[in-house]
This record gives sequence, structure tokens and C-alpha cells, in this order.
Amino acid sequence: MIELQNITTSDLETYHSSLSRKYQDIQNKKLNLDMSRGKPCKEQLDLSNGLLESLDSSDYRSANGTDCRNYGILDGLPELKALCAELLEVQTQEVIVGGNSSLTQMYDLIAKMLLHRLPDSDTPWCKLSKIKFLCPSPGYDRHFAISANFGIEMIPIDYHSDGPDMDTIERLVANDPEIKGIWCVPKYSNPTGITYSDNVVTRLAKMSAKAPDFTIFWDNAYIVHHLDSTHPKLLNILTACREANHPNRVFIFSSTSKISFPGSGIAMLASSEANISWLKKLMSVQSIGPDKINQLRHLRFFKNIAGIEAHMERHAAILSPKFKIVLNILQDNFANDHTISWSKPHGGYFISLDTPPGCAKKVVAKAKAAGVVLTPAGASFPYGNDPEDRNIRIAPTMPSLAELQQAMELLVLCIKLVSAEEELAKRQTAS
Amino acid sequence: MIELQNITTSDLETYHSSLSRKYQDIQNKKLNLDMSRGKPCKEQLDLSNGLLESLDSSDYRSANGTDCRNYGILDGLPELKALCAELLEVQTQEVIVGGNSSLTQMYDLIAKMLLHRLPDSDTPWCKLSKIKFLCPSPGYDRHFAISANFGIEMIPIDYHSDGPDMDTIERLVANDPEIKGIWCVPKYSNPTGITYSDNVVTRLAKMSAKAPDFTIFWDNAYIVHHLDSTHPKLLNILTACREANHPNRVFIFSSTSKISFPGSGIAMLASSEANISWLKKLMSVQSIGPDKINQLRHLRFFKNIAGIEAHMERHAAILSPKFKIVLNILQDNFANDHTISWSKPHGGYFISLDTPPGCAKKVVAKAKAAGVVLTPAGASFPYGNDPEDRNIRIAPTMPSLAELQQAMELLVLCIKLVSAEEELAKRQTAS
Repeated sequence: MIELQNITTSDLETYHSSLSRKYQDIQNKKLNLDMSRGKPCKEQLDLSNGLLESLDSSDYRSANGTDCRNYGILDGLPELKALCAELLEVQTQEVIVGGNSSLTQMYDLIAKMLLHRLPDSDTPWCKLSKIKFLCPSPGYDRHFAISANFGIEMIPIDYHSDGPDMDTIERLVANDPEIKGIWCVPKYSNPTGITYSDNVVTRLAKMSAKAPDFTIFWDNAYIVHHLDSTHPKLLNILTACREANHPNRVFIFSSTSKISFPGSGIAMLASSEANISWLKKLMSVQSIGPDKINQLRHLRFFKNIAGIEAHMERHAAILSPKFKIVLNILQDNFANDHTISWSKPHGGYFISLDTPPGCAKKVVAKAKAAGVVLTPAGASFPYGNDPEDRNIRIAPTMPSLAELQQAMELLVLCIKLVSAEEELAKRQTAS
Repeated sequence: MIELQNITTSDLETYHSSLSRKYQDIQNKKLNLDMSRGKPCKEQLDLSNGLLESLDSSDYRSANGTDCRNYGILDGLPELKALCAELLEVQTQEVIVGGNSSLTQMYDLIAKMLLHRLPDSDTPWCKLSKIKFLCPSPGYDRHFAISANFGIEMIPIDYHSDGPDMDTIERLVANDPEIKGIWCVPKYSNPTGITYSDNVVTRLAKMSAKAPDFTIFWDNAYIVHHLDSTHPKLLNILTACREANHPNRVFIFSSTSKISFPGSGIAMLASSEANISWLKKLMSVQSIGPDKINQLRHLRFFKNIAGIEAHMERHAAILSPKFKIVLNILQDNFANDHTISWSKPHGGYFISLDTPPGCAKKVVAKAKAAGVVLTPAGASFPYGNDPEDRNIRIAPTMPSLAELQQAMELLVLCIKLVSAEEELAKRQTAS
């Protein structure tokens, strides 16, 4: 590793020229690679091809004889609710199994909170002059997009190694009645890979909230998405909230989007019976029921929790080498560089990389100019605003191993090139 | 037919006793039949069983090579959009193909109109102190349930033989800025069976509206759901609105719910390009895309419009005898009774029956007490309030021919029994 501050300007210029030539070489290869989203690769999708053939003309009834082809059953097939309840570690009556998107469930829930009154609300949120959500950052850009869409003010919250900064959260939530919610990806968090500690979960459940209807949006998207055998345990937040006498505080979301097919999976949510009953009453106006045939397909294909867990090991076998490539290349190039750090996740879909401050936007732009599209710098922060302009979300799942190797070599080169350019610019300003 | 007013009280009492005995006999049979909703029967569902097997492990790509198993394509597969556009007689870019429920599309659209600003709106509707929808009645109870859910005031509008009362509609809409919408089932209307005339469609498109964002919710649910070869032609309202210089006035909805599988079909909507663009921008926050695998399944199964039309003839072959049983029994019993009338639809899912005023609730209650559940009396009117208490919606699709015969005999008996009871009560009051 070269410590740029400690070399002569002449050496720095030579170093920069050498990096520029390498960058030019890669540009000439005309790469064309999209690493902007956490999309499963073809080999992962192939794991679930059995879903395409798991039913036939003689198999369309659920366990109690319901003809799944017809209308009805607002909250999902009973046996799938039971399976999802087991997955989410809640009771069957605390679950609603829906369509193909948990994102849509979150969006719909907030729309309902705006237009109707939650069990613990004084008033529909759209009648209030301002509402605010806490946004642990870096976080999931689509959560922030939903907040922005509904005009909800977003307050960024820093991450510690075991979850979001609870001291700040507790202080804000206890004093500001306009703070109505918090977005959490509590396990293998997008993009940091962090799993919330028991202490963080308990404090979220226990803390005093000025708003009686303060709600935790618990997006447990990566609930069984392990990359190795570590399997960190996440405390059950629904139980924690009930024990803390805030039974209606949390809605838990998950889906099979990254278990089966992203476009054709099953979304689920869980909450207290009071919240579920409130939601089902509103949903009964919106829908006659979800796609039960697709629910039955998933039941036939996965059978039970053991089936899902075995399936996830096959995903991990495909993904783990990809994460290793990324981590190895970062380690090989930046092991001793204290200005650069990255997550080493045990699960989930992302590696979160922090470049030197002020570099992320330029690095992402340079990678794009050489044919590799990364998640836009800043996208993981509310309003797309990374205050230090240093976070880059790496999504290693979609490319092949060979493509990933190329993309990471380019990314490393772009970081070094931008760092050298910044140091040169600094010296020119100083001279 | 017995004219109750013209027989002696003694004869009336004998007649009533005879009806009561027959009713008791049917009660003893302990029927158990639910005719409350327009649900397809098993034989109809079987017509689409090919959908359960229309894809396999080697067939999951759309025409342009898109892997339908993965994320993406917010507005639906291009070739399905093209097919739906042909069905709706609009341009492909005027269509969004969604999930399994057009009801959900309608609900979602109104939620968006409440929380956001339509292209022609001054303000999101939730910021207004009151909004109103016109509700041609009898109509679809789930439309009215959506309005009620969102606190939208409903104004009932009478039906003429060629559609809703346009004189009243034009007068109200021209003068009241709080009237923001109208619910229409323009073809084989639920439950009247009426198809709107060209004159009605043209007047809806042309009329002056005080609200610049007055919107027609055009639920073309029965677009190809013919019962015979009459096939009344419905004028294209999107074209009519564009020609009338109100291009953004209408949203058209339809679905395959009663073509393929009610729980697992494809919903679609169409509107002006400006409205579609507005809606897609908002949808991009709500969803990453619909279930494209299910869309591909429908493409493989139906292939094209001719495939859909041939399929609908097979539905008609199942349904037409059921409608004939209902119509024949009504004709046999009430042909000369000017106090009782009913629709003779060429398509759709219902027969709309008008009993003598003040009898519908009692008839439905008596049928229920004898084991046949009909749609609750009044359900087809805003607030469940049939001002004359005379309309009953008959849904003949679900029962078998034998069950339908039994149910209709019971319904006829209940009408006669309630009529006799009413006449007896009248005489007791008078004496």
C-alpha cells in the first residue's frame, strides 16, 4: 500500500499516470455490467425452477379442501400462514401472507396509516402538519423512497457495530411527537450486514415514545439468507414489544423474493393481533384475496422450514464464493489503509464499503464510465445524501465470478485513482 | 298468477297457509347453498387448468429474453401489455398490467388520488373537506365499499335502460366541485346487465365538470363475458374523452379474474399517457414489478385475442343454461305480475330482480332461513340502502343446475310468501 501523503509529488504524478493507463486499458475492454441492485443470479433462480412445475391439473386444493383457483381467503392459505409464522417466530394469527412484494405491503401500510387511524393513533397521519421517520443509515434506499414519496421527513441515524445508535434514537423518540416511525433491516442489514444485538432490540421495544402510535418497520428481508454457518440470532421483537407493554409498536415484514423467485414470491407480515385485525378490516375493501395458487406452489415446493433451510444452503453455496472474491480483493489492496473500511457480512446481499471521505461519488462515476454500474453513491442515505460522501454499496450476487473479479479490480483501481487525484488536487491548491 | 288484492281474506289465508307448508317442506330439506357472490363454478375453473402446466423449467423468458423469474418491469411484460391493449381497444403505452386484482388497482388509485396530485388536480383529495362520487345504482357493492372506506360521500344515480341517468349526472357534475368521480360498470353492468349506449358514453366524455380532475372509474369487468351471440358494442371511452378534450378523465379497469382463475388472474388498467406516466412514477416507489411468471403463464395459455374469445365461448356454454333456468322460473311464475321485474342479460354474472317494494330484505332473510344465502338486500346500493327495498342480485354461476333449480324455486316461494304476508298485514291494519 502506498501512503499518498508521504510520497513526493513527482512520485505521486508517476503513480497517477500508471493508474490512469490501467484505467484506460479497462475502459477499452468495454465492460457492460450492472451491479446496482441486489438481484439474484441465474444459478440462484434455477434452484427454484421446481416451482414452475410444482402444481398440475389435479393439484389445486389446500389442506382443508379450498379450491385455490377461486376467490377468497384474504390473509393467505392457513398452512402457509403457519409456515410463515414459524419462519418469523410468531403465532399464526399474527401473520398475513400476501402477494409478491413485501415492499408493496410496507407502502400500503403507510398509505393506510396516513388515511386511517392505527389502533394506537389519535388521528390519521395525513391530517398532521408534519411526520418524521428515523432512518438508520446507510440503509435500504427503497425505504427512504417510500418516506420521500409520502412527504415524511427523514432523520438519519448512525450505525454502531451492533445496530443503530440507540442513545440518539431514545432521546429523539422520547421528545418529538412528530416522530412516528423507524425503518429497520435488523438482520444482515442492507447494506451494512449488521445484525441487531439483543440490547438494541430490547431498547427499541422498551423505549418511551412521545407518539403513542410510534411504529417500528422491521424489514426482516434476510431472515434465512446466511452466507456461512455463523447464523447470528436476532431477538424476537414482537415478543419484546409485548413484554415491554408496547404490543402494537412493530410490524415485521419478510418475503421469499430472495428465496424463490424475486418477481413471483410470497410476501408476509406479522404484528400484534390488534394490528392484524385492524389491517385485515381495511384490506377487505382492497382485495378479495392474494394469489393462493402461487402460495400453494410454494408450499408444495418447500414443504416446511427444513426445506427452506436446505434451499438457503444451496443459495449460500452459490453466493459465498462471490462475497469471498470481493472481500479478498479489498483485503489484498486496502488491508493496511485506515481510510478505507468495509463490512464482512455473515449473510444478506451486500458489502458496505467506505472510501476516503469525499470520494464515493467520483469512484462510482469512474466505474460507470468504464462500464460497471454500481448503486449510485449516497443512495443508501435519506435524500441520497451521504454526509461524508464515502459509502458505496457493493452487490456481488448478480455477476459471474469472472465478471465480479473484473468489476472489483476496476472498483479498486477507481478508488486508488480518485485518491491520487484528490491528493494531487490538494497539493495544487496548497502550492 | 294470483292477484292478491282481488281475493278474499279467507282465500288469502288459505293461500298463505299453503305457501307456508311448502316453505316448511323446503326448510326440512336443510339446503346449504351460497349464491351471495359472482363466483365461477368448478367447471369454469377447470377450463383454465392448462395455466397450471403452461410453463416449465425451460420456459421462463419473455419474447425479448427477459428472465421473468427475476425483479423488474413495473408495468408488465410488453407482449402482455400489447394483448391487453388489444382487449381494451387502446394503445400499448396506455396500459399497465398488474397483479391479481383490478379491485386492488382501483383502491390503490383512489388512495393515490387522496395522497397525491392527479395531473389535472389542484390538490390531493385528502386535503379537501369533502369529496363525492356518483354511484349508478344498483351497482357493484365493492365499489361502494371502497368509497365508504375512504370517507367519500356517495350519491346514488338511477339507471335507465341504456345506462345511468345522464340528465342528472350532467347537472350534478357541472355544478358541484366536490364531485370527483363516478363508478361505472359499462358492459353487462353488475347487477343490471345493461351495456351503456353510445349516447351515454359520449355524454360522459363530453359533459362539463366543475372539478377539473373529475374522474370516471370505468370498470370493464365483463368485457368479453358474453352469454349469447348478441355482443353489444361498447363505445371506446378513452377515445371519446380524448376527442372531447378531456383526455385524462377516465381510468379503464379489467382483469382475467372471471376469464382464467379469480384468485390468480391478471389485472389491467388503461388511461391517457399523461395519467399512466403519473401513475407509473408513483408505482415505482410501491413495487419493483408484478408477478411476470404468472403473466407469462397467461400468454402461453391464451396466446392471443382469438384464444381468449374461444375460451369465453366455453364459459358461456357452462353459464348460459344456468341463466336460462333462472329466467325461465321467473317467467313461469311472474310473467304477468307488473310488480315484479328482472333483467335478461346478454352477458356478465348477474340477474337483477325487483320484487314488490318493501319485500327484498324479508325475501332474502326467508331464503337464508331455508339455507340459501343470497347477496344481502340493499348491498347493490350506496350505504346498503335500497330506497324501495326491492332489488335482489341473483348470482347463478356457482351452483349446479340442480342446486340452482332448488334455489330459484325457494326464491320464488319466498317472494310469494312475503307478498302474501304483506297483503295480510295490510288488511289487519285496515280492519
